[in-house]
Amino acid sequence: MNIVITGGAGFLGARLARALLARGQLALAGAPAQTIQKITLVDQIAPPADLAADPRVRAMVGDLNALLAAGPARPVVGADDALVFHLAAAVSGECEADFDLGMRSNLDTIRGLLEACRHLKTAPTLVFASSLAVFGNSPEQPLPAVITDTTLPTPQNSYGIQKFIGEQLVADYGRKGFVRGRNVRLMTVSVRPGKPNGAASSFFSGMIREPLAGIRAVCPVPPDTAVALLSPSRTITSLIRSAEASDKEWGARTAINFPALTTTVADMAKALERVAGPKVASLIDWTPDPVIAKIVLSWPARVDAERARGLGLLPDADFDAIIAEYLSET
Amino acid sequence: MNIVITGGAGFLGARLARALLARGQLALAGAPAQTIQKITLVDQIAPPADLAADPRVRAMVGDLNALLAAGPARPVVGADDALVFHLAAAVSGECEADFDLGMRSNLDTIRGLLEACRHLKTAPTLVFASSLAVFGNSPEQPLPAVITDTTLPTPQNSYGIQKFIGEQLVADYGRKGFVRGRNVRLMTVSVRPGKPNGAASSFFSGMIREPLAGIRAVCPVPPDTAVALLSPSRTITSLIRSAEASDKEWGARTAINFPALTTTVADMAKALERVAGPKVASLIDWTPDPVIAKIVLSWPARVDAERARGLGLLPDADFDAIIAEYLSET
Repeated sequence: MNIVITGGAGFLGARLARALLARGQLALAGAPAQTIQKITLVDQIAPPADLAADPRVRAMVGDLNALLAAGPARPVVGADDALVFHLAAAVSGECEADFDLGMRSNLDTIRGLLEACRHLKTAPTLVFASSLAVFGNSPEQPLPAVITDTTLPTPQNSYGIQKFIGEQLVADYGRKGFVRGRNVRLMTVSVRPGKPNGAASSFFSGMIREPLAGIRAVCPVPPDTAVALLSPSRTITSLIRSAEASDKEWGARTAINFPALTTTVADMAKALERVAGPKVASLIDWTPDPVIAKIVLSWPARVDAERARGLGLLPDADFDAIIAEYLSET
Repeated sequence: MNIVITGGAGFLGARLARALLARGQLALAGAPAQTIQKITLVDQIAPPADLAADPRVRAMVGDLNALLAAGPARPVVGADDALVFHLAAAVSGECEADFDLGMRSNLDTIRGLLEACRHLKTAPTLVFASSLAVFGNSPEQPLPAVITDTTLPTPQNSYGIQKFIGEQLVADYGRKGFVRGRNVRLMTVSVRPGKPNGAASSFFSGMIREPLAGIRAVCPVPPDTAVALLSPSRTITSLIRSAEASDKEWGARTAINFPALTTTVADMAKALERVAGPKVASLIDWTPDPVIAKIVLSWPARVDAERARGLGLLPDADFDAIIAEYLSET
């Protein structure tokens, strides 16, 4: 079995590739397990060295829209690719600052990718990474206290709108039989290693990661700000399970919410103090940033992930466990 | 005030233009009423003679995407256009038969139109005609018994998906201040004059209109099929009211459902018999068509149009009144 991962050189994409390579096989959509023979990592940057060194890994480096425009001569997805994880995206903060970037990176890409899949006539499975950001609170339309899989998304930022449009396209290309679509909504992934990025949610990792490295970090939202988190490991498990679920297990073509631990940034800081001591926790600067706060405070924090639960996907037990996982891996 | 109507030579567009010209003025989004000086009818066909003869009417004939591609040199929407009604669309049956046609006619058009509006930097008001077809019943995700303004749309045809994506784009361009967006969902409009078209819902007019003209007509769905109808006159009133509502009256950027009378095709036939006699009603052939039935039976029939009611918009009293209106106009 051949697999394509867009955004495959990024943190989640590379971690997903490592998990798939370690397993060595995959039971796609309820079919018998097959050996994974090739994973194509499509990204603007080259994959990490460990992945590049694996003989099963192929790298495709470039702008996704440009790569898709090359067409069948140099296909991003070929007839021998049974599964595509579409993780590539411009992140929330970037899309709010640069509207055209978001439309290109988050809307044109999924449409182009779906068209590429459609023209193969092989109906590959496409796992589309949507986001909790499709849900947005507003004075005119307050969010319910708990988000379910059937809550009406009312995105309050362009990233969320573009992701929600992607879900619709995946649903219809799926209904038409052009792909087997799997719409999944990622929660805020924390703790991410590496550097801050342009996501409004970036600080949910930075406020833990930087202090653990002895570096000051900003928490730009009030201490009582609640958030729906999922650890990197459970996010990857959930992505793979979504590809493995049979059509019957999967059910409706609308998106499923991944499970999430509800906590607050104050409680995240307390967990950091419990795990690493007060000196480390004191490296968090509580400095409000209205631009980031406006985006983040519009997102929901309580999610009843019923369909994910039905697939056996559960949230992390507590944030202490998430920090412990991060420490064990760095 | 200058107004643009895409699909302006079609039945609804022409009727809307006539209603606006007869009023002579419009109070846009709660502002003081202004005299309507120019209405541009954009369509693939030339407008009806009565409209073409009005000195306030300008016709712009061509494919909407092609017209939009011409850019500012020959703008579809200019800086002096305060209001756009976007009614142009490929209809449901066409989109299901020709996927690319639907994507071009219903997705590329609204995106192109929004981009044209954005680049004006005048934030015109855009009333986007979405549709009840955003709601679709499926075994995996049954519709609730009554649709509300916050019911999650789960479209079961490409037309509905494309309209729902359009709603998202209008909402975000509105949130960004590029336009003042007004997403409205039209119900099945009946009784339409003229000829059958490619809409799966076309027979809801044909099964009344044709018998009244002494011609046999097919009802392709079972007699107990329920439907959410709104007369042409109330549809036009609702479109104009949507442009006139202030931002505060309007509320959330998500779509409002227009009001609807719930009836069944059997009761429509009985109303026809009451109004025009058994001989006319006997001209209906009850011949199932699985392709049409599959689309139409996925649509909801009961709508609680709360936001529309708040704007003073109500459904027709009964189908007899709708037939009477049709007869009075032909």
